[in-house]
Amino acid sequence: MFKKILYPTDFSELSDKALKYVIRLKEIGTEEVVVIHVIDKRTIKVFSKLYWQEFSITDKTLKEKAQAALTPIEEELKDNGFRVKVLVAEGIPFREILRAEVEEDIIATVIGAHGASNVEEMLLGSVAEKVIRKAQKPVLVIKG
Amino acid sequence: MFKKILYPTDFSELSDKALKYVIRLKEIGTEEVVVIHVIDKRTIKVFSKLYWQEFSITDKTLKEKAQAALTPIEEELKDNGFRVKVLVAEGIPFREILRAEVEEDIIATVIGAHGASNVEEMLLGSVAEKVIRKAQKPVLVIKG
Repeated sequence: MFKKILYPTDFSELSDKALKYVIRLKEIGTEEVVVIHVIDKRTIKVFSKLYWQEFSITDKTLKEKAQAALTPIEEELKDNGFRVKVLVAEGIPFREILRAEVEEDIIATVIGAHGASNVEEMLLGSVAEKVIRKAQKPVLVIKG
Repeated sequence: MFKKILYPTDFSELSDKALKYVIRLKEIGTEEVVVIHVIDKRTIKVFSKLYWQEFSITDKTLKEKAQAALTPIEEELKDNGFRVKVLVAEGIPFREILRAEVEEDIIATVIGAHGASNVEEMLLGSVAEKVIRKAQKPVLVIKG
């Protein structure tokens, strides 16, 4: 039922909690996990304005950093017996996650979501909320 | 992992779709389903104003109608080998669902959610969205 799962991560504690949950899905027959991290250039732009010394970050550096952060996740999943595919995308996170949902033909998405929204989330909606709203397949929401 | 599930229904087509999903959870070890329907008196008030001839509906009638609509759901679940508990609550739906989540000590909630929100939902947030936001346990969202 949950054979192939999409697991989006932003490397937050909440994403890590969702990963622990994904690993437990082995018990109920999950075989393959598509891990996706989306590099959100809008955030990086804001960040760069605040911390001008980071302004020189190149696309290549960003991708390398993302790949480096994804490696232990990939290994943890493989150690637990899953087949793993890792995707690094660039763009608006919820759109790239929804694109992967379709292109990878997954059965369900496992995503972490906070209960209490902060001001930004209240105005814009969190990535998780947008994914939940627009997903075509079931979404398993892990609470923070 | 999904031994005891909470399944809220408003008897909509979408709730019915979620029920089909709940039944499939048997494959992955779900044993018990707590079915809840919440009688929302706010909606009934609006409805009564629109259709004044219904104004005389009593609380007893409402509960009986809900029970009658829940019976085939209960039977379908039992026929599929689940233990079933049926709750009819009165109040604000998302609050009663969240109360059941805690009191019944369930492992996850399975709920249907529409993708495209209508105007009312955009203003108020759908029941599903509020449940997803405020739930303590994982929520499996089935898309309409």
